[in-house]
Amino acid sequence: MNISHIEHVGIAVTSLEEAIPFYENVLGVKCFAIEEVADQKVKTAFFKVGQTKIELLEATAEDSAIAKYIASNGGRGGIQHIAFAVEDGVANALAEAEGKGVRLIDKAPRKGAEGLNIAFLHPKSTCGALVELCEDPNKK
Amino acid sequence: MNISHIEHVGIAVTSLEEAIPFYENVLGVKCFAIEEVADQKVKTAFFKVGQTKIELLEATAEDSAIAKYIASNGGRGGIQHIAFAVEDGVANALAEAEGKGVRLIDKAPRKGAEGLNIAFLHPKSTCGALVELCEDPNKK
Repeated sequence: MNISHIEHVGIAVTSLEEAIPFYENVLGVKCFAIEEVADQKVKTAFFKVGQTKIELLEATAEDSAIAKYIASNGGRGGIQHIAFAVEDGVANALAEAEGKGVRLIDKAPRKGAEGLNIAFLHPKSTCGALVELCEDPNKK
Repeated sequence: MNISHIEHVGIAVTSLEEAIPFYENVLGVKCFAIEEVADQKVKTAFFKVGQTKIELLEATAEDSAIAKYIASNGGRGGIQHIAFAVEDGVANALAEAEGKGVRLIDKAPRKGAEGLNIAFLHPKSTCGALVELCEDPNKK
């Protein structure tokens, strides 16, 4: 698998309205986009920090993965996933990972925030971290 | 606060011996250093991914922060912290954060892995994520 950089770090929060001012006013990074991803039942806020984005995630439904993460984390937010940009396409990366015995959450790429093609590996196969692979289809 | 990039992402693992092969053989990123940080009761393994490092952390004692994180996470590893590189020094960044009402874990910078000056903000003040600030004293 050919990973170029960390595309983003996904941080679950209980409220974007509370979290965005911390990132903007304390850390001094600017929110450049807010987007609802209906498919994943989340509202996201993006910040650029060097080469990588911070993606804050607020659940929009009780059965979203973010709501479940927060419930399992004692009602608190936290760092939910790390997303790596792959150079040779998410489909190829998934095939390679599966061939090496990695359990997949997504058997095929799907659309994520910002129009990226994304897929998640299962934390049981990654020693704990929830790992996302992604590619920007407009970069080709 | 003037943040240039994400210096590293800290991922707690139950065993470096199990986790390093996942990162090297599946994700294809190379471990370039293994270091024990006695002060924090951890053994760390570093990988460079673009501008940012992945720091895998294994506890070396039951009372280390990493052992506590894993215990509170159902015995599993996960993404424990995110570390931002600050441009004007960690001491200045801490003073600024404290002035804005942020609760600090470290009132003053201390030495972390790779000789960096580091300090942690308290997750109660960051909407959940454990945030580290760091600077490389040799870069000045």
